[in-house]
Amino acid sequence: MRLYSFLFWKRKKTLTEKLASEEYDGGGILSEEQKLTDLSGYNIKQLSDLASELRQQIISVCATNGGHLAPSLGTVELTLALLKVFNPKNTPIVWDVGHQSYAYKILTGRKQRFHTLRQFGGVSGFNNIFESEYDAFSVGHSSTSISAALGLAAAYPERKAVAVIGDGALTGGMAFEAINHVGHLKPDNLIVILNDNQMSISPNVGGVQKALTNFLVSKTYNFFKKEAYDLSKLLPENIRKTLLHGSKKMEESLLNIFTKSIFFEDFGFTYVGPVNGHNLSQLVKLLAKVDANVAGPVLVHVITQKGKGYKFAEEDPQRFHGVSPFDISTGKSKKPAERGYAAVLGETMSKLAGQREDVCAVVAAMCQGVGLDKFSQEFPERFYDVGIAEQHAVTFAAGLARGGKKVFVAIYSTFMQRAFDQMIHDVAMQKLPLVMCLDRAGLVGADGATHHGVFDLAYLQMIPGLVVLAPASGSELAQMLEWAADYQDGPVAIRYPRGKASLEDRGEFALGKAVSEGKGEDVAICSIGDSLKDARALVDLMSGDQIKARILHYNCLKPFDKQVLQESLTDGVKEFITIEDGVLSGGFGGRVNDYLCSKGVNVMNFGYKDEFVPHGTVSELKSSLGLEPSQIYKKYLQGREV
Amino acid sequence: MRLYSFLFWKRKKTLTEKLASEEYDGGGILSEEQKLTDLSGYNIKQLSDLASELRQQIISVCATNGGHLAPSLGTVELTLALLKVFNPKNTPIVWDVGHQSYAYKILTGRKQRFHTLRQFGGVSGFNNIFESEYDAFSVGHSSTSISAALGLAAAYPERKAVAVIGDGALTGGMAFEAINHVGHLKPDNLIVILNDNQMSISPNVGGVQKALTNFLVSKTYNFFKKEAYDLSKLLPENIRKTLLHGSKKMEESLLNIFTKSIFFEDFGFTYVGPVNGHNLSQLVKLLAKVDANVAGPVLVHVITQKGKGYKFAEEDPQRFHGVSPFDISTGKSKKPAERGYAAVLGETMSKLAGQREDVCAVVAAMCQGVGLDKFSQEFPERFYDVGIAEQHAVTFAAGLARGGKKVFVAIYSTFMQRAFDQMIHDVAMQKLPLVMCLDRAGLVGADGATHHGVFDLAYLQMIPGLVVLAPASGSELAQMLEWAADYQDGPVAIRYPRGKASLEDRGEFALGKAVSEGKGEDVAICSIGDSLKDARALVDLMSGDQIKARILHYNCLKPFDKQVLQESLTDGVKEFITIEDGVLSGGFGGRVNDYLCSKGVNVMNFGYKDEFVPHGTVSELKSSLGLEPSQIYKKYLQGREV
Repeated sequence: MRLYSFLFWKRKKTLTEKLASEEYDGGGILSEEQKLTDLSGYNIKQLSDLASELRQQIISVCATNGGHLAPSLGTVELTLALLKVFNPKNTPIVWDVGHQSYAYKILTGRKQRFHTLRQFGGVSGFNNIFESEYDAFSVGHSSTSISAALGLAAAYPERKAVAVIGDGALTGGMAFEAINHVGHLKPDNLIVILNDNQMSISPNVGGVQKALTNFLVSKTYNFFKKEAYDLSKLLPENIRKTLLHGSKKMEESLLNIFTKSIFFEDFGFTYVGPVNGHNLSQLVKLLAKVDANVAGPVLVHVITQKGKGYKFAEEDPQRFHGVSPFDISTGKSKKPAERGYAAVLGETMSKLAGQREDVCAVVAAMCQGVGLDKFSQEFPERFYDVGIAEQHAVTFAAGLARGGKKVFVAIYSTFMQRAFDQMIHDVAMQKLPLVMCLDRAGLVGADGATHHGVFDLAYLQMIPGLVVLAPASGSELAQMLEWAADYQDGPVAIRYPRGKASLEDRGEFALGKAVSEGKGEDVAICSIGDSLKDARALVDLMSGDQIKARILHYNCLKPFDKQVLQESLTDGVKEFITIEDGVLSGGFGGRVNDYLCSKGVNVMNFGYKDEFVPHGTVSELKSSLGLEPSQIYKKYLQGREV
Repeated sequence: MRLYSFLFWKRKKTLTEKLASEEYDGGGILSEEQKLTDLSGYNIKQLSDLASELRQQIISVCATNGGHLAPSLGTVELTLALLKVFNPKNTPIVWDVGHQSYAYKILTGRKQRFHTLRQFGGVSGFNNIFESEYDAFSVGHSSTSISAALGLAAAYPERKAVAVIGDGALTGGMAFEAINHVGHLKPDNLIVILNDNQMSISPNVGGVQKALTNFLVSKTYNFFKKEAYDLSKLLPENIRKTLLHGSKKMEESLLNIFTKSIFFEDFGFTYVGPVNGHNLSQLVKLLAKVDANVAGPVLVHVITQKGKGYKFAEEDPQRFHGVSPFDISTGKSKKPAERGYAAVLGETMSKLAGQREDVCAVVAAMCQGVGLDKFSQEFPERFYDVGIAEQHAVTFAAGLARGGKKVFVAIYSTFMQRAFDQMIHDVAMQKLPLVMCLDRAGLVGADGATHHGVFDLAYLQMIPGLVVLAPASGSELAQMLEWAADYQDGPVAIRYPRGKASLEDRGEFALGKAVSEGKGEDVAICSIGDSLKDARALVDLMSGDQIKARILHYNCLKPFDKQVLQESLTDGVKEFITIEDGVLSGGFGGRVNDYLCSKGVNVMNFGYKDEFVPHGTVSELKSSLGLEPSQIYKKYLQGREV
């Protein structure tokens, strides 16, 4: 019999792992603390008490650190029931996205450390295989759980594998690809828990949701569930025979037609449910029964309430989906909201849509996050929320653009990775003049490695004919959007960071023109987008040492301005530094190198090296990576680093 | 009333467009020839005669040029019926993938030029908006049509939009994302034609296919379709009332349950069909009826036969899916098959699987294309074809790897773009030691812009911790695969081109070690993977002029060998050339530049600039781009080009 272990390969530790191991156990071996809470002796009453404790801890930590409160409150009982029935050491549990897994984290050895949630070096906001052996699969992006659990089920046919997926995540195409494959493989050891709270991040859209909802609310459903089989016996025997004609198991089939979710049954699942996701007794009983008796892929339909147990989160689950620190007694945010780039997008889009009838917007389940909630109310007929479906979002937008609309697609940078092929194949290849707005570009902070938008400059830059912009202030974003609304020659991508937007007026936008600040001839600091502030800090540090610096600031990566570099060369500048909030490979610095490569000057590139960046505040992360201006300056003084 | 025009924006012409316009009309205005064949006066007999003519032309051109014969033979009648009922100038028709659109091309003004199919400067093998105003949307990759048509339908609510999608393409997640969005928007002007031939490129897999097939073969289906309504009247009145309880339209609902495809109905489609896709009279009648009478999104289920009308293609639709030039009378290929990299993958995988029980393979509907057909028969329990579902393929493989399997995922380079996010988020972030084999890397030739695998070096290079390899010969690929089978430290990607593989023995594989050929001190030519042969040709050209060159050959882009570059610097080499079969932005040349940037030497980079590359033979394309060794040499002599 093979030993089941997730951690069977050896490798060097990354920053994420080092941090995790130091924080947890000082050396990579699981500490005492990281033991699973054993629920085998708990009765329902005790489980119920534990549920209250868990809720208290989750609410209290989220109130201090911020976090995904509402999703995790909704799954407390489900988590307890899962851990009562299954041992996660033998039965991998894959949480889709992972933002609902706080109770799971606490119960799988992370209780003592849970107060460090989302803090630098602390517990991650998502499941991470390097954080705990009980995290079966690292997650963060949506809709991966069925694929992953199906793989685990296929790898270990003798063990069960569990995926817990929300109804929102089901709209992601890859979840469907996985369901389709389940229909083909029909593994008898796969359990999919549908955590149906009828709301993902924004209220859900689409057919999946409607099918589920209709199914549930249908008065006929419960009726048929109880009565259909008996009813068929009441039919005149000749009709009944005719109905049953043509199939050996038609009796069963007839029953199925009436009583089970045809969608999942079509794909080979045995459908079980729906069950109240907050009734521990029912949940435990049902899961135990499923574990013991049901062969074949099973779908367990669990109805939960997002935010359950905390009044304010129940009332406004959308706001409490991912929440910044708040006052527990009032539910109100502790910090006043900063005016960020998302607000600028929202305002500018509303203005543009007021001026032009052809302007419309496409989002993928992040209406509020990208700042378009007001727009969606003002211009409902020109606003499209396609659900968690980035691939479709981009190609649907391409269709709108091909039909003559001026489309703005707003998606977080990290999620836009899902639409990489569509940007190339459906947008750029047709030179469609649509605008892609990539929010949360660069480091995002507490959400960590899965959510940093650090690849975008590189993956956008390689797309033929794509204009790639990066504003340094809110008003510059507004300028760019207005410019892009009139641009007809092809697609435009604009990437901008999370958080507070500078108020600086950067003047009118001109395509492909970088701007010099200063005339210093010792060193030219090349910055892009939001890294302008670091470039300025660096100039200040240098001026203290009588080093004369100039800034070459790019608000446009592509088309790339070579002239401003050439001017510096002509002025005799021999040292160049590049700073960007993105990966070094194929990014802004690389583009500068491509030009300066044969010019006999020295260049130092600063950005993210070949390693995933963990969670923490942006400042902590930059500092840990040696990317604070003072650290960059020190390296510059030490001479070019190879 | 707005004018409906696809070509409403101005821009500079690219190579693709220049070629297309010169070939077609000498200047961008549609020639006489590019007129739509007017079918309005044709009766069914005349349409049927035209179908025969079309088949003849398609078979004859494919026999000479190669092409997607079987898909296009299957849709001849469907195309005629669509063009009889709809004017594609007013009703955009989006062909999914586009490889089934040859009859459409001939009938929409490309008859005279159709003999240039897939040739350099000739008609593209897929739909391309720059080739014809009748091509509503450029296509090539699978599963985009519903998204695009939904966008067109939303942009022009007063006109209909049509998507034609195969049953295979339905397994792609983005098609499902689009169907889900249709269920939300419920546009009354969207028509989706399901071209159901029960086979995509390889025989289909998965639940969608089974659901469709079961539905069709079910004896009860036709029975219920005719009889259900009447039957319900035969029920005792009390039972009937009970059945109808709780819904105003229950009578209709009851009928629906029995008679329509619940899958599509669940998502808001009106389901029509199935209809025989080779019966012109039925097809025309049905489409006319749908056009005139049916509101709401409609799904028309059309049953077609792949390869219809050409015996050999009917018998072996898989071989005739995409076929090289063949003899019409025998169906046999004109050229003997060359032993390519795919064959090496197949043989090596079979060998490895024979040696190790943990080895398994995942493909996305391209079993034969990637060379794993024999493997799939030898090791069926360790072979997974997930359908056209690259996202799921990669994450499912990650699940298998996490469960301890040694997984090899084989996908064409261009299609792997679909799984960019999964490679980052599900594979690299977890450092899972799986192997991704990217076939058809670099220029692929006749399939053109949508299919060239030119982005991979760049998009792979930026993924943290990923090993990126590129063999220069078949035996080197085998070496790499065997090495990768034992590698445990993280994921490995191997990219290799289409076509004949060199037989050269490149010795044992060593990670991260580039190899020098020669000691020439005038210039170092840096090559990667298959571009070694161009580097050697360049050395020969140079040696004729007494220029002393050395080759620095990389079989591994990452980890990147700096030492071999440093050795050349130490030897006093002052000129460097990089050659790669990929985009310049963020690719191999860029990586060389990053290292050489501050070394005071001159570097010239050769690869694909910021433009999509059209179709043609690889040699024609390279020549047109100035990338043949003789052209590179000329540019080198002219001095560094900026």
